[in-house]
Amino acid sequence: MGLLVVGSLGLDTVATPFDKIENALGGSATYISLAASYFSGPIRLVGIVGSDFPKEYIDMLNTHNIDLEGLQIVEGGKTFRWSGKYHYDLNVRDTLYTELNVFEKFDPVIPDSARKSKFVCLGNIDPVLQSKVLDQMENPQFVVCDTMNYWIEGKKKELLELLPRVNVLIINDSEARLLAHEPNLIKAAKLIRAMGPEILIIKKGEHGALLFTEETIFSAPAFPMESIYDPTGAGDSFAGGFIGYLFKTRDLSSESLKRAVIYGSTMASFCVEKFSTKGLEELSYLQIQDRFRQFMNLSRFDEE
Amino acid sequence: MGLLVVGSLGLDTVATPFDKIENALGGSATYISLAASYFSGPIRLVGIVGSDFPKEYIDMLNTHNIDLEGLQIVEGGKTFRWSGKYHYDLNVRDTLYTELNVFEKFDPVIPDSARKSKFVCLGNIDPVLQSKVLDQMENPQFVVCDTMNYWIEGKKKELLELLPRVNVLIINDSEARLLAHEPNLIKAAKLIRAMGPEILIIKKGEHGALLFTEETIFSAPAFPMESIYDPTGAGDSFAGGFIGYLFKTRDLSSESLKRAVIYGSTMASFCVEKFSTKGLEELSYLQIQDRFRQFMNLSRFDEE
Repeated sequence: MGLLVVGSLGLDTVATPFDKIENALGGSATYISLAASYFSGPIRLVGIVGSDFPKEYIDMLNTHNIDLEGLQIVEGGKTFRWSGKYHYDLNVRDTLYTELNVFEKFDPVIPDSARKSKFVCLGNIDPVLQSKVLDQMENPQFVVCDTMNYWIEGKKKELLELLPRVNVLIINDSEARLLAHEPNLIKAAKLIRAMGPEILIIKKGEHGALLFTEETIFSAPAFPMESIYDPTGAGDSFAGGFIGYLFKTRDLSSESLKRAVIYGSTMASFCVEKFSTKGLEELSYLQIQDRFRQFMNLSRFDEE
Repeated sequence: MGLLVVGSLGLDTVATPFDKIENALGGSATYISLAASYFSGPIRLVGIVGSDFPKEYIDMLNTHNIDLEGLQIVEGGKTFRWSGKYHYDLNVRDTLYTELNVFEKFDPVIPDSARKSKFVCLGNIDPVLQSKVLDQMENPQFVVCDTMNYWIEGKKKELLELLPRVNVLIINDSEARLLAHEPNLIKAAKLIRAMGPEILIIKKGEHGALLFTEETIFSAPAFPMESIYDPTGAGDSFAGGFIGYLFKTRDLSSESLKRAVIYGSTMASFCVEKFSTKGLEELSYLQIQDRFRQFMNLSRFDEE
């Protein structure tokens, strides 16, 4: 039945202190699907593009066992476009423009073949649309959801209606503080888990990630990177690696969730090594395993 | 010969959103010595106070096997005083006042009994004084040094002269970026290690700490704390736990350094649970071991 991924596909124009690209492949569904594709397939992508969406991108996604039956291609429409500029300190970025284009009227329709999917990843889109996706599913068992400050501020009510329906919420530290109205992340995590999701992951960029479940808190390190080429898509790649690993193993134990967080961090670290989706296009599972072990060495210590 | 600790002793007036204390025991040498005292003794403290320094504090330090032969008590002088206010987000603090008092003329004199100490911890004081301490030592083998943005900005030259003489520099992330003129912490660490210290520890507060040596990078988690009562002294407690463990074991291998970072984090976590030095006054080694293991559970994951 596959892993269902719903989110945006876009054409990104990105400038960093190192280089610049125009109209490169981007979007949350794109990064999530590519990252997840290394673990198991098929990935069933639901999203929307215009007829200007390059065929080479379609082909590339197809080669990664990403099923595009649910991709709406609007004849004569223009694909979603985003442009951002990163500063010398790559933690800071400015959005230069956002053109919603066909994405403005996106109404996700889940193909029959994907409605029975047990694993669902809701990329960062309007919580109203995320709920609409779940309405169409027959009996999803593990729903991972991303969101952002824009929705927390602008569609709080709709987001709070969605949260009890998701198993895992993945947000960053500033979003967690905003959603919980609480600066202490440990307290914020308790408050957010009480809103619905039994599992919460707080991404902290260069400081790693925290996993909160009923019985455990797990602190994952960040991969020490001297040169981050393009941070775009890191969070989506994390979500893709996380759900991809769980979809492959079907093991939802705490120990497996911890490994999934590390696989998420692994995919995010590959993502930022190249512009656009390039860092996720030609990996081998051996490379992924190798980096997983590097994460292990990074944080491991023993009693004397 | 003991572990030599040089730094400030002071009377702190601290306000947090939870409570307020006046003229409570503080100072870098105080926190370092107390934290280190749980691992091995004797601790030889060198510092300066006025005759207003309460005898109960002297007694308390003595009960922790802290040798005060090197403590200068200036008759008629006033002890160093600092006052700070923490905000609701405890990462932010304002200094309300700093009265140097007797500390302004501090000229550390190392007692003969301590000049042969092999382990030295230089608390955060003027790098000129830190160098003066080392000038008096016979053959120190392991020198740990703390500093802060004030010295990095105001006494850069003197600090750079000191750094080749220290084995471990412990600073926080913003200080590392400032010292190296580099926002990427991994690159900054390389640059700082090239300034002299073969071992660098970057403290990241609620995000844990990073250890950099020639052969390894180690990422230590932060202890998940719902209520931080008073963050004052956390960094000094970290330094004390770090050098205390190494002084006890005399094992300077990478694996031991990693454990020392966790013991440092452990002592910092106890420190912030109570106001002033209260969190470090009545611990047992069993409690410390127990929290060390909690740190282990927090970051440990296994391959499937």
